Amino acid sequence: MNFQSVLDEIDREIRPLLGAEGAVACYIPGLARVPVAQFGIALHTREGVEACAGDAATPFSIQSVSKLFTLTLAMRYLGDALWERIGREPSGNPFNSLVQLEHEQGKPRNPFINAGAIAIADRLVSRGQGKADLLAFMSDLCGEAVRYDEEVAASEAATGFRNIALANFMKSFGKIDNAVGEVLALYFHQCAIHMSCRQLARAAAFLCRDGAHPFDGRPEITTERHTHRINALMLTCGTYDAAGDVAFSIGLPCKSGVGGGIVAVVPDQLTLCVWSPALDASGNSLLGLKALELFVAKTGLSIF
Amino acid sequence: MNFQSVLDEIDREIRPLLGAEGAVACYIPGLARVPVAQFGIALHTREGVEACAGDAATPFSIQSVSKLFTLTLAMRYLGDALWERIGREPSGNPFNSLVQLEHEQGKPRNPFINAGAIAIADRLVSRGQGKADLLAFMSDLCGEAVRYDEEVAASEAATGFRNIALANFMKSFGKIDNAVGEVLALYFHQCAIHMSCRQLARAAAFLCRDGAHPFDGRPEITTERHTHRINALMLTCGTYDAAGDVAFSIGLPCKSGVGGGIVAVVPDQLTLCVWSPALDASGNSLLGLKALELFVAKTGLSIF
Amino acid sequence: MNFQSVLDEIDREIRPLLGAEGAVACYIPGLARVPVAQFGIALHTREGVEACAGDAATPFSIQSVSKLFTLTLAMRYLGDALWERIGREPSGNPFNSLVQLEHEQGKPRNPFINAGAIAIADRLVSRGQGKADLLAFMSDLCGEAVRYDEEVAASEAATGFRNIALANFMKSFGKIDNAVGEVLALYFHQCAIHMSCRQLARAAAFLCRDGAHPFDGRPEITTERHTHRINALMLTCGTYDAAGDVAFSIGLPCKSGVGGGIVAVVPDQLTLCVWSPALDASGNSLLGLKALELFVAKTGLSIF
Amino acid sequence: MNFQSVLDEIDREIRPLLGAEGAVACYIPGLARVPVAQFGIALHTREGVEACAGDAATPFSIQSVSKLFTLTLAMRYLGDALWERIGREPSGNPFNSLVQLEHEQGKPRNPFINAGAIAIADRLVSRGQGKADLLAFMSDLCGEAVRYDEEVAASEAATGFRNIALANFMKSFGKIDNAVGEVLALYFHQCAIHMSCRQLARAAAFLCRDGAHPFDGRPEITTERHTHRINALMLTCGTYDAAGDVAFSIGLPCKSGVGGGIVAVVPDQLTLCVWSPALDASGNSLLGLKALELFVAKTGLSIF
Repeated sequence: MNFQSVLDEIDREIRPLLGAEGAVACYIPGLARVPVAQFGIALHTREGVEACAGDAATPFSIQSVSKLFTLTLAMRYLGDALWERIGREPSGNPFNSLVQLEHEQGKPRNPFINAGAIAIADRLVSRGQGKADLLAFMSDLCGEAVRYDEEVAASEAATGFRNIALANFMKSFGKIDNAVGEVLALYFHQCAIHMSCRQLARAAAFLCRDGAHPFDGRPEITTERHTHRINALMLTCGTYDAAGDVAFSIGLPCKSGVGGGIVAVVPDQLTLCVWSPALDASGNSLLGLKALELFVAKTGLSIF
Repeated sequence: MNFQSVLDEIDREIRPLLGAEGAVACYIPGLARVPVAQFGIALHTREGVEACAGDAATPFSIQSVSKLFTLTLAMRYLGDALWERIGREPSGNPFNSLVQLEHEQGKPRNPFINAGAIAIADRLVSRGQGKADLLAFMSDLCGEAVRYDEEVAASEAATGFRNIALANFMKSFGKIDNAVGEVLALYFHQCAIHMSCRQLARAAAFLCRDGAHPFDGRPEITTERHTHRINALMLTCGTYDAAGDVAFSIGLPCKSGVGGGIVAVVPDQLTLCVWSPALDASGNSLLGLKALELFVAKTGLSIF
Repeated sequence: MNFQSVLDEIDREIRPLLGAEGAVACYIPGLARVPVAQFGIALHTREGVEACAGDAATPFSIQSVSKLFTLTLAMRYLGDALWERIGREPSGNPFNSLVQLEHEQGKPRNPFINAGAIAIADRLVSRGQGKADLLAFMSDLCGEAVRYDEEVAASEAATGFRNIALANFMKSFGKIDNAVGEVLALYFHQCAIHMSCRQLARAAAFLCRDGAHPFDGRPEITTERHTHRINALMLTCGTYDAAGDVAFSIGLPCKSGVGGGIVAVVPDQLTLCVWSPALDASGNSLLGLKALELFVAKTGLSIF
Repeated sequence: MNFQSVLDEIDREIRPLLGAEGAVACYIPGLARVPVAQFGIALHTREGVEACAGDAATPFSIQSVSKLFTLTLAMRYLGDALWERIGREPSGNPFNSLVQLEHEQGKPRNPFINAGAIAIADRLVSRGQGKADLLAFMSDLCGEAVRYDEEVAASEAATGFRNIALANFMKSFGKIDNAVGEVLALYFHQCAIHMSCRQLARAAAFLCRDGAHPFDGRPEITTERHTHRINALMLTCGTYDAAGDVAFSIGLPCKSGVGGGIVAVVPDQLTLCVWSPALDASGNSLLGLKALELFVAKTGLSIF
């Protein structure tokens, strides 16, 4: 299939819609001032072919897309022991709700809600993994130096009262082992990773190649079994409270972030990254989802 | 692949485990007296090849597996209008919880929780579809006469206070159009459909062939688009409160019932039905799930 | 104290406000067509002195005020055994919520939410008490023949899906012993009792005289101990989700109904009944509450 | 009435029950090591008569009883504006639940749940009131120097993750104006006030004398209107999730703490303080409640 022309076509169809609907996340200045009229799309196939269109080279704040990578690291370090502290069920509630967390005694429902990602950050801190290690991991995955947007990280920390509440709440149930401040320092930084569609499509490519590193010859990122499971979690829990709808209408494992990025996987074939900053009511990139729908319609690629 | 020998192997591995764990549903006599030490498995491929092992010819009460078929009928009759009354998100709560129903003003979260299936029965009643029509649909799908277990249907009606509550609750929000009694008569009967693994694998085969009827030459059951969407709903919502876990550990769209049956789909390849009456804590067949895990491990078939 | 002139004064102050705010309950025709611009107030002292003003002789649908009297009967028949099936805590949720009922396994939080009153009707039915007995009790209490508004009772039954849901839901937890239809027949009738302020003030007078019958010489209605407890329940649970606010701003035990009536008690001194059909957002009579505030301000009577 | 002999009698009846049931709060060492077999009772009448029995002179950690006094201060400083940030309804949920707080957008249901008391501490900090001011207020009320147990305050701070979560959660809704650390410093200290029954009965005596200072000649503590309202809040919300039950079985406004103290008020007559460290399942002093029941039974004093 000529993926480059598919992406070009999607870019042409999406571009006229830019800025018409949705709103940029505005809880911190670093996100609020991102110009809304941007759209990028990039893919990386199992064989290493790359294609991209639009603003695919523009870096953005990957936000919750980072949860995909910290989960991968935590599964590598802890294996099945990870699931003693974190569930694998969709949340059925807005993404930062405390209700379910209380009901389940401080055990987050899945690794992709904020509480779950904070619990994973705690597990990584216990393994001696910090900000520098995460950056090295991301840089290795995409073959380019990746950086934190320190202004965004500082804003997240200065306004992240709800995440501070989540971390302390889990700590009150004995579900966070390290000092809350240290755990959140890693969490607020992971949200502030700055990458482009092209970089993210490549960095996530191990998910379409059974865990193998995007660059042949390097050690595998994770196992085939873990890869399947990460993809399953993306499908059932990866797009906030809209995971059921996204599975229904797009049918690919996805992980989104409030920076407007979405990583999607066609298992055994390719990884895709779309980005457009305006969000819909569920916190997912409005045109990002639209672009993924177009991609599925044009290529017929679907897991169902 | 030699599916017959795969199923035989699974049957050999499962049989020693029969009766060791789990418990038969016991809220009505018709289910409670089913001997626990039974296991059946059957498959039907896209090409029409069939294979089965164990108690694959023994009929059982399909219970919630029927929701798959009433959903298919309702999508055929109503198209996208169906989703005005029913959501598509995992429930994140035990399967007959009223909490979320209240929160969402009588709109069930998805078609596979009890409230959602009752809402679908209401839509079918509005289209003039009744017990006889549903039985004709099921019989046509599997090419054999299918019957209701009237004793089970009567027991469901006599003890189904929670379902009566759900129906009246939705009615109080104006989300049920017909008389509650008429809607529940259909619902209680659909739960009491009596079929074997072999029949169910065949009846659901349209899900692995883009909606085409299992017997070539007949009109298609549903469209390719609807088929993908039904499979997506099975994956995110098909196994009560364990959908996330089942996606994680098995990775196939499944719909289970408290009679111990589970239908699973490998899109574009085959449909599978397993049955064993003892249930785990989430209400899914304990050895049925185990058999599906074995099937995936042995065949490498997975959507992720 | 010259109570007659106090009531006259309150009537003069309230009358100009009639019809300005609030709305009549409109879920059934029998309530919806009640003219909004009506206000009545009546009291009955421990010594038997009566006073009234405004529309105190106009009968209205007492609705949830009836829960006060069925509770009294049930405490008489069952004593402390009543509390095995019903709690004594404020609900902290809108008056017909099912959430808490699910959380507490079908045991209603208190006798004044709908679920609690239905549970009490079930207890009375078990004791052989029916519609005729309740009417005889009410007539005896106020010394005049009291009747049901059968049109209202029929409307309640025809539209009471939420109450049917509540009853079936409790039945599903084994907390209703009798047939749901029989229990609800009593419940829907008790809501349709037709009485005036004057009659209700007199009927509730046993609450200000330690349980003694309003007409000396007859056997006592309930014990001193039960009287204190009924007053306590009125204070903590008697005015739907506004009980805390009413205790805060009025400071008297009250029981309200969506017909616009409110019975209030000054223990050891007098019973008061106010009525005005327009309700506030919490379902309590807007000017009824205002009149009670005025009464407390003018008389200095308060339990705090 | 000879109150001294009533208290002596209660002490004689309670003493044999010491240590038999209930458990001392054990989340911090300062509470966990309090010997269980202690009981004190003291009262202070409107006229200034005092009586006490048992361990009435032994100081203990007043914990949530302090919420009574910070509420009084906040009502003095803010008047009705206080209620923009805090509700007046019973919580219907365990005392540190976050569910309702989320539902109500960070506005605590009442001033006596932890979230409400933290919100009040925030209001006091905004008015320039700190630890020293609170201590001065308490010392002035009881006419003796009162101190903080700094070890308890430090333990509260070191383990109070749930309260830190609550404060940050409210801050995320914009309902806390000051730095969370500063607000909690006051809150953790107020819990650690060290007083005896005798001191507390005297300090709370303004509640039985329409707000007048326990020592004649000093300015009044609060108004008559505020006094009634504080008493109403104690009745509906003062004993955690058991407020309905306490109103039902004791019938006096009460405020309890997990240190085992309870302050009760007979409006216009007297203030009572009981203390015994072993708690029941609802977090109230088990023998403290028993002693209050005995007091009501022996004296016939009740507000209902």
